[in-house]
Amino acid sequence: VSPGGLLSPGSHRADGVADDDAVVRAIAGVEVAWLRALSSLGAVDTNVVDAVSAAAETLTASGTELVARTEDTGNPVPAVLGLLRQGLPQEAASALHRGLTSQDTLDTALILLVRDAANRVRADLDVLSDALGRLAHRHRHDVMVGRTLTQQAVPITFGLKVARWLDAVLDARDGVDRLLPSLPVQCGGAAGTLALVGELTDDPLAAVTAFAGELGLADRSPWHTHRAPLTSAADALVAVCDAIGVIASDVCLLARPEIAEVTEGPVAGRGGSSTMPHKQNPVLGVLVRSASLQAPLLGAQLHLAAAQAVDERPDGAWHSEWPALQQLLVLTVTATSQAAELVSGLYVDTEVMAARAASAAEALLAERGRPGVPADYLGVADELVERTLRRLRAAGPEDG
Amino acid sequence: VSPGGLLSPGSHRADGVADDDAVVRAIAGVEVAWLRALSSLGAVDTNVVDAVSAAAETLTASGTELVARTEDTGNPVPAVLGLLRQGLPQEAASALHRGLTSQDTLDTALILLVRDAANRVRADLDVLSDALGRLAHRHRHDVMVGRTLTQQAVPITFGLKVARWLDAVLDARDGVDRLLPSLPVQCGGAAGTLALVGELTDDPLAAVTAFAGELGLADRSPWHTHRAPLTSAADALVAVCDAIGVIASDVCLLARPEIAEVTEGPVAGRGGSSTMPHKQNPVLGVLVRSASLQAPLLGAQLHLAAAQAVDERPDGAWHSEWPALQQLLVLTVTATSQAAELVSGLYVDTEVMAARAASAAEALLAERGRPGVPADYLGVADELVERTLRRLRAAGPEDG
Amino acid sequence: VSPGGLLSPGSHRADGVADDDAVVRAIAGVEVAWLRALSSLGAVDTNVVDAVSAAAETLTASGTELVARTEDTGNPVPAVLGLLRQGLPQEAASALHRGLTSQDTLDTALILLVRDAANRVRADLDVLSDALGRLAHRHRHDVMVGRTLTQQAVPITFGLKVARWLDAVLDARDGVDRLLPSLPVQCGGAAGTLALVGELTDDPLAAVTAFAGELGLADRSPWHTHRAPLTSAADALVAVCDAIGVIASDVCLLARPEIAEVTEGPVAGRGGSSTMPHKQNPVLGVLVRSASLQAPLLGAQLHLAAAQAVDERPDGAWHSEWPALQQLLVLTVTATSQAAELVSGLYVDTEVMAARAASAAEALLAERGRPGVPADYLGVADELVERTLRRLRAAGPEDG
Amino acid sequence: VSPGGLLSPGSHRADGVADDDAVVRAIAGVEVAWLRALSSLGAVDTNVVDAVSAAAETLTASGTELVARTEDTGNPVPAVLGLLRQGLPQEAASALHRGLTSQDTLDTALILLVRDAANRVRADLDVLSDALGRLAHRHRHDVMVGRTLTQQAVPITFGLKVARWLDAVLDARDGVDRLLPSLPVQCGGAAGTLALVGELTDDPLAAVTAFAGELGLADRSPWHTHRAPLTSAADALVAVCDAIGVIASDVCLLARPEIAEVTEGPVAGRGGSSTMPHKQNPVLGVLVRSASLQAPLLGAQLHLAAAQAVDERPDGAWHSEWPALQQLLVLTVTATSQAAELVSGLYVDTEVMAARAASAAEALLAERGRPGVPADYLGVADELVERTLRRLRAAGPEDG
Repeated sequence: VSPGGLLSPGSHRADGVADDDAVVRAIAGVEVAWLRALSSLGAVDTNVVDAVSAAAETLTASGTELVARTEDTGNPVPAVLGLLRQGLPQEAASALHRGLTSQDTLDTALILLVRDAANRVRADLDVLSDALGRLAHRHRHDVMVGRTLTQQAVPITFGLKVARWLDAVLDARDGVDRLLPSLPVQCGGAAGTLALVGELTDDPLAAVTAFAGELGLADRSPWHTHRAPLTSAADALVAVCDAIGVIASDVCLLARPEIAEVTEGPVAGRGGSSTMPHKQNPVLGVLVRSASLQAPLLGAQLHLAAAQAVDERPDGAWHSEWPALQQLLVLTVTATSQAAELVSGLYVDTEVMAARAASAAEALLAERGRPGVPADYLGVADELVERTLRRLRAAGPEDG
Repeated sequence: VSPGGLLSPGSHRADGVADDDAVVRAIAGVEVAWLRALSSLGAVDTNVVDAVSAAAETLTASGTELVARTEDTGNPVPAVLGLLRQGLPQEAASALHRGLTSQDTLDTALILLVRDAANRVRADLDVLSDALGRLAHRHRHDVMVGRTLTQQAVPITFGLKVARWLDAVLDARDGVDRLLPSLPVQCGGAAGTLALVGELTDDPLAAVTAFAGELGLADRSPWHTHRAPLTSAADALVAVCDAIGVIASDVCLLARPEIAEVTEGPVAGRGGSSTMPHKQNPVLGVLVRSASLQAPLLGAQLHLAAAQAVDERPDGAWHSEWPALQQLLVLTVTATSQAAELVSGLYVDTEVMAARAASAAEALLAERGRPGVPADYLGVADELVERTLRRLRAAGPEDG
Repeated sequence: VSPGGLLSPGSHRADGVADDDAVVRAIAGVEVAWLRALSSLGAVDTNVVDAVSAAAETLTASGTELVARTEDTGNPVPAVLGLLRQGLPQEAASALHRGLTSQDTLDTALILLVRDAANRVRADLDVLSDALGRLAHRHRHDVMVGRTLTQQAVPITFGLKVARWLDAVLDARDGVDRLLPSLPVQCGGAAGTLALVGELTDDPLAAVTAFAGELGLADRSPWHTHRAPLTSAADALVAVCDAIGVIASDVCLLARPEIAEVTEGPVAGRGGSSTMPHKQNPVLGVLVRSASLQAPLLGAQLHLAAAQAVDERPDGAWHSEWPALQQLLVLTVTATSQAAELVSGLYVDTEVMAARAASAAEALLAERGRPGVPADYLGVADELVERTLRRLRAAGPEDG
Repeated sequence: VSPGGLLSPGSHRADGVADDDAVVRAIAGVEVAWLRALSSLGAVDTNVVDAVSAAAETLTASGTELVARTEDTGNPVPAVLGLLRQGLPQEAASALHRGLTSQDTLDTALILLVRDAANRVRADLDVLSDALGRLAHRHRHDVMVGRTLTQQAVPITFGLKVARWLDAVLDARDGVDRLLPSLPVQCGGAAGTLALVGELTDDPLAAVTAFAGELGLADRSPWHTHRAPLTSAADALVAVCDAIGVIASDVCLLARPEIAEVTEGPVAGRGGSSTMPHKQNPVLGVLVRSASLQAPLLGAQLHLAAAQAVDERPDGAWHSEWPALQQLLVLTVTATSQAAELVSGLYVDTEVMAARAASAAEALLAERGRPGVPADYLGVADELVERTLRRLRAAGPEDG
């Protein structure tokens, strides 16, 4: 059981991103890392670490029964711990989770899911950026009609339009790049004081640092009721969906047969109608556009939870984060992958663009007050394309 | 694969509500009903109906592969049809889906899922209403402190508070009762004209009527781009979550140890902490409250889609409805069931209530300007309880 | 000060709907009605009613100072009462507001604003429905291309498209018709027991009934923490915006110069560009579309508040309703008026429609498998138009 | 006319932030800056600049009539230009706005409003941070009960709770600090090519740079359809509301009379009830909490617009940004100011805290398994307070 599925077309692209097996693996991974951290401080025997680590490796969600047990405690951690303990010797079973609270484990596990999803998104943003860069370069001199408020305005180049898409994608990628190293471990114990950890080791903060190190996450003070790590992640992912949503919406418009300036690249079996043999639907465009209509409300859900994170652990706000985050991860991973494929295969009809611009020349140049051809009235379109391509090139070596 | 799962504690209560198997069953059921409808008009042979019906019965979602195939067409219908056709003789395979468009099938299937979920919710609202009725009656003379803006105001009875919860639940139940008979079949063909159905039978509208009859749904004009059937369903379900959310939030407040006027009924193994043996968390209250924080944004997602249902089938808005609807169904079914259990098992400490009211008597009666005991200053609390209980009794016989 | 203004183009159409003067008038009107109700039961002297009524008539918001005073109590009622009391004799000043709590007054005042706005919306929905009815009738035989997922599908008539718009508008109008008579008075005193009213009269519930009668509102039990009266209003108004949003979005698409099947009726001075003399922007379409993108989140805000209406008056949820409701009223009144004007003046180019359908005939009829002309393949389009026009006619006499 | 007003208690604190006069001033200021920029390149005579600059200084919104004229063009810029042109000599009137499109002016004006609001928020975050720092320091050894899921868990100090609030506020302040220097000028002409500017000067990009310089904004490529500058601003402001919302919600809980560990500082005339003389409502807490329930949906509105920014200027998405942004600015400025005052005047009852912790000692230490006093089981609470105070001190010199 997981988000995605038949009502989220294309969600196989996000396979394993946030389904129940991924949740179980992440929870188990967090517990193992915590034991390793304690072990590095001499607070847990290495036998225990080895036993738990071995048991964790074969753990899987056993379906409905595990879900039913999540209700008893209101979160999935104890149920997963129960499963994990089944095959453990007594000493390891007792040591497991010692010092942590459920929120430590679950929040850290969620951060691991976020990191995995963000890394997948990051990789697809690279593919997408490169594809956009090639497209912008190829079409930097291809004139088309610029449209504002649905009407024809002044000429632009298709390269400029693509460069604007690229600018947005690079901004979104920068956001993911800022996000990834900031993703923190959660570790505070029952109420954020690490008091129980203090029973296990003299230096609880060193344990947190070691824990973060085991998982490759940032070390920071407990954030049980300060949810910026999750809302920042949501903001970064929503920004990705915003950027690719514009591309998809533009493609859907330009692919209308009456405009016909671009077409989604044909893939065998894709885009056909169940009844009309002639139709070629812009399927990827439609699905990415759909994702971009959903992401903002999922982000808002996380902010709403953040604003109500009362006490040392809130009574419902915390729980309301999980499905929205899960859905946002699946959606963004899916849609970014689709967007990369959409742009990589986009067919551009520069002849249609040129012919339309030529036939509308008078209107397109009316602003200038002197007749001419659209190509004469492009302002700094090419300089702007070049500026964005330079930005792409500059980002290239470091990031990829 | 489905919504719910480990990150939606208690979602086993919504088992089968909107998972992939439910989607496949609903799609197959719609196709069978359509063939039966055509058959009733003599437009399809009964052999075909029997063959498809038999094949439909054993159909299940085969997992990831089926999901991957949803992307080619942007919706799950063709993939499910492909699966269904595998075991069919040629004649039945050709007749299958003839006259329908994917949106006819999927929208009707979604309506079937809505109906199933709404019926489950309706049944739990009965349990909840009866439990609230008993509670209001039992505590109609139990005085407690009334609180406004977090501060103690004037006295009320716990019965009055429960009667207000009940009033809201009965309103929500009325909403579900209005919704259920209005749920319509979707049937219009590629662009809502039933043109292809006109190739199969002389009276396409009679086919729609028969189709609706087969499924027990309302007959209405195509609503491909008029999404009120879904937004009305969403509004009704969100209203349920609003009503039970208030109950849950009140319980979470009154169960705080410093207030301690109610306690979630103890269930073996539930509400315990992973580290603190003494704690009894109000788990159901927390989870229902969490649901009520999520439902409003899911409803908004459906309205956003409705407002953008352009052309004869929109490019993304339609698709953005599915995950939100799916999540809303699972959430509402789960939370209503939890709320019914929460109220049925609620422990009420009338002594604590009475003692607190007594000790605050001076403040509670300050408004009146004459000293006295809280029980003297209850206004029409009891008449209001009685009014709501009469409403519950009046609704009783007809509804259940 | 009020919502609307320069950043809400066209909001002069909602003048007086929910600005500060309207709020002050509504609050004063509620207080006068309450005194009249008490007076009808002999609980207040008619001199008092007359004095307050006279003072209320000349009351206006005095700007910033009044706003500053709202903060002391967290709601505007005491500040307005203070203003109202300034010119009153001692007896009237003491009698004013006696028996009510701020929430009684403010909620009832908000309901009055809702009613005023809903009535305006209702009137514009009549204009809009009639205009749509004429348009559907006029174009019931005008063939055009049906479009799904942006691509050309099968033929429809423009009359059918308009009939679908009309169907949605009639559903939305039915929603407003259900809403209006249900709008209730709020009257419960500090914690919903009417205890203080019981100090003024023997029959507090009779006072509530008289109060409701004075204002022409429905009589019902206190709903301080059961917010269905407001969420139902929001649902009804959002449904209006959904319905007109689809019309506007369709117009924006069909008015694209490459499609050019409809044009917003020219109005002197409207739709021009600040720099491009040739452009005619679909201004009303754009603004109505913009409204339909905003309404769903405003509705969600009210549901979020409803779900958290704890205690006998909640600590923030109640307050979060006001700006969203205010904005939703202004938005819906404005956009419905714009939509009525948009449809009334819409220019339809049936020649462009016919020519495009003719040239795409092969594709449009591919589904059928036999060649022909688009007008031959319209299914029951005309019957569906007739069905909706009958619905409009049936609704006519009763409603307007 | 403006957001705020009687239904937004305390919005006098945001006076001038985004009302119509502020919009008019910002638009006029942008136009003057553009002329100065052109003048610096020799493209406009200084007489023109002087004339426009003088006329701009006395410009005010003339109310409803100006609003009515916004509808003709769908945005307020042409109406304001019309007003500005009234007193100008012919040459200046013609030069005004030359080279710009309405979106250049309005987007830049909105950015100016954002900057003004963000600066006010920044200043109040300094006050708030300092107040929190003092509070955390003062109470670093004051033991209280830690609460999770509404129940008493393990001991914390009030200083630790405040340090967590402070950590969140410092994160939010860092976000505002990142935002402010990134706020860009919008300048691209009709479709983002600066073509018309190219008719005025040889180096259009230099004109943009000069324009940015005049306004102290960042220079960047046109972002007409790449709305990250606005969504980033929204994200930063929503994060502020998240941070202060948690403080306010915690204060509302802890100020409940049954808990009574903190009280909102008394201010003459504030927090009183309209009917109950004894009550002291946590007014600022309630209002800040209310703001934090609203901000997330306003942010989502801007992301929704961003995701749909099609063509070279979208047909409705752009327009849907304005009221949400306006409301978010007013809300955040108001609530941050209220939060600063709330924390500065907070009364903390350390005796109640200590007594409650002492009486619950057994439960609070159950996790540890050894009896003792709560002060013995605080883990690294004090180190965590110190870490946050160091962060505050480190930020101090650079930022203020």
